[in-house]
Amino acid sequence: MQRLSALHDVPTLHNIQETHDAIRSMIHHTPVLTSTLLNDIAGAQLHFKCENFQKIGAFKMRGGASAAVRLTEAEKTRGIATHSSGNHAQAVARAAQVLGIPAYIVMPQNAPSIKKAATAGYGAKIIECAPTLEARESTLEAVVADTGATFIHPYNNYNVIAGQATAALEMLADMPAPDIVMAPVGGGGLMSGTALTTRYLMPQVELIGAEPKAVDDAYRSFISGTMQVNTTIDTIADGLRTNLGDKTFAIIQRHLDDILTVTEESIVEAMRLIWERMKIIIEPSCAVPFAAVLTNPDRFAGKTVGIILTGGNVDLEKLPF
Amino acid sequence: MQRLSALHDVPTLHNIQETHDAIRSMIHHTPVLTSTLLNDIAGAQLHFKCENFQKIGAFKMRGGASAAVRLTEAEKTRGIATHSSGNHAQAVARAAQVLGIPAYIVMPQNAPSIKKAATAGYGAKIIECAPTLEARESTLEAVVADTGATFIHPYNNYNVIAGQATAALEMLADMPAPDIVMAPVGGGGLMSGTALTTRYLMPQVELIGAEPKAVDDAYRSFISGTMQVNTTIDTIADGLRTNLGDKTFAIIQRHLDDILTVTEESIVEAMRLIWERMKIIIEPSCAVPFAAVLTNPDRFAGKTVGIILTGGNVDLEKLPF
Repeated sequence: MQRLSALHDVPTLHNIQETHDAIRSMIHHTPVLTSTLLNDIAGAQLHFKCENFQKIGAFKMRGGASAAVRLTEAEKTRGIATHSSGNHAQAVARAAQVLGIPAYIVMPQNAPSIKKAATAGYGAKIIECAPTLEARESTLEAVVADTGATFIHPYNNYNVIAGQATAALEMLADMPAPDIVMAPVGGGGLMSGTALTTRYLMPQVELIGAEPKAVDDAYRSFISGTMQVNTTIDTIADGLRTNLGDKTFAIIQRHLDDILTVTEESIVEAMRLIWERMKIIIEPSCAVPFAAVLTNPDRFAGKTVGIILTGGNVDLEKLPF
Repeated sequence: MQRLSALHDVPTLHNIQETHDAIRSMIHHTPVLTSTLLNDIAGAQLHFKCENFQKIGAFKMRGGASAAVRLTEAEKTRGIATHSSGNHAQAVARAAQVLGIPAYIVMPQNAPSIKKAATAGYGAKIIECAPTLEARESTLEAVVADTGATFIHPYNNYNVIAGQATAALEMLADMPAPDIVMAPVGGGGLMSGTALTTRYLMPQVELIGAEPKAVDDAYRSFISGTMQVNTTIDTIADGLRTNLGDKTFAIIQRHLDDILTVTEESIVEAMRLIWERMKIIIEPSCAVPFAAVLTNPDRFAGKTVGIILTGGNVDLEKLPF
C-alpha cells in the first residue's frame, strides 16, 4: 500500500485525490441512488451517496483508512489508538487489521456488547473505562503513554478529514452537477471534508449542513462565529451528538452557506420514508439532511441535491417505528 | 410502447428477450449486490438480484408489465383485472396507469388499508369482497363479466411468467457464470420464469427452488410428480403461501434440479443477516433461498450462486426481530 505523508494543514484537492487513490483497496466505491417517489415527495432531484453500504457500515472507514496509510514504519509497529463506542472504533480497528498493526480502542463500560464484539472481531484490543468523556480521555492518554500508539481523533484531524472528503469526490463524479450538497453535522469530519471537495471541484454549489435541533452546537457556532457546545445529547441521531472541533469548525465556518436544524419527529419521518421507499437501511443520523429538505420545501424546490447517507448501523430491536 | 402478441405456450428465449425489450421503460434494471461478510458466513459466492429495488418494490412489476404490453387495442379500452391483496395488485395497477387504461382490483375487506391505499394511488378501482378465495374468484368473475376487462392471473399465466423470467435475464448478464441459480417458490411464477431463462442461456447450471417447510406444496408436488396443496398458511414468508398452478408446476417439474425447504427460524435468521450486513430491506419471502444456503452448507460450499431477492414491501411495525 502506498504511504502518504501526514497532513498538518487543511487538505488540498491534491491531498484528497491522493488519499482516495491510497485507500481505494480498503473501501467500497459506494453507489449514488435516486428514488422517483422521494423526488416527487420532495419536489427536488435527490441523489443519495450510500455510505451505509461502506465497509464497517459507515463513512468512518474512509477517515480511519486515510489516517492509517499515513503512518510511518515506526508508528505502524506501535499501532493506533482511539476512544469511541461507535463507527470510528470499528473503522480504526478494521484499518489496523488490514495493515496488520495493533489497535487499542478505549470504550465506556456501558457500550453495547455487540459494538465491543464487532470491534474485537477486527482484532483490536478493547480497554474499558468509566462512561464519561474525562475517563475516556485519561484512559486513552494512559494507553498512548504505555504503548506509543498514534491517537486517531474521530474528526478533529486533517488526515481523517481528508479521508471523509473522498465520499464527496465519488458522489460528484457519479451524479449530475448539483445545485446543493448536504451532509449531517456531528463532530464535523464528514461535513468539513465534503465542503472542501465540493468547493475545490464545484465552487458555485451551495453547501448546507443539517443538524438535529436538540444538538445544534454547529448551527449556533456557525451563526455566532464562536464555538458553542451541546448541553444535551437528547436526539435519536446518535452519530450527531458530538461537538465540533476547532479544525472542523474553521472549515465549516469558512465554506458552508448554511446549517439547517430539524426536529426529532422530522428525523423519524424522513428515516421511515427512506426505509419504506428506497428499501435501504440507514441510521437516524443519515435522515437529518433529508428531513431538512422535507421541512424547507421552498428552499429545495426544483434543485438537484447531493446528500451523503452516513451509515447503516442500527439496532433492529430499537427502531423508532 | 411496442405491443407483443399474447403467449399461449411456454415462453421461448426469444419471447423472454422481446418481453424485456418491451417492458424496459416500465421497470428498473435492478442491481446485483454481493457481501464479503455474507460470503464468509455462507462459504459460497452469493450474488443477490435486488428486486426489492424494483418499481412497486417487487419483481411482480415485470409480470404485470409483460401482460399489459400484450393487450390489443380493444382489450386496453376495457382494461385489466385481478384479485390480490399484495404486490401483484400494485403491479397490475401500476402497469395500467402507465398505459392509461382501467384496472379493477378485487381485494378482501380485511386487506391492510395501506395496501388498498397504495393500489388506489396508482388509479386502480378497488372492489372489496369477503376474505375467502371463493369470494375473491366469484367477485372477480362478476367484475370481468361486467367490464370485459382482461384477467391477469398472478402467476399461472405465460405472459406473466415471461415477465418474471426477465429478472434472471438481467441477473445472468450482471454476475460471473453461476454454478447454482435459486429463487423462492410461492405460486411458481418467478421460479418458472427463472428456470426457463437459466436453462435457455446456461443449461448446465443447477436450478434450486426454496420454500418454507410450513407451505411446502411445491416440494411435495416436485417429489411426488402430482400437484399438492398447502393445508396451512402458517409462515412468515407471506409471499409464498400460494399453491402452484398447472402451468408453473409443469415448468418447475421439468427444469428444476431440487427444491429445499427451510424452517421459520432459519428464515428470520437469514432475513436478519441480510438486513444487518447488507443494509437493505427485504421481505421475509426473499430470505428463503439464503436460509436454504445457510442450512445446507455442504451443498453450496465454494459455489457461485445467483439468488433472486423478490421484494422489499414489509410492515416496519411488524418486524420479526
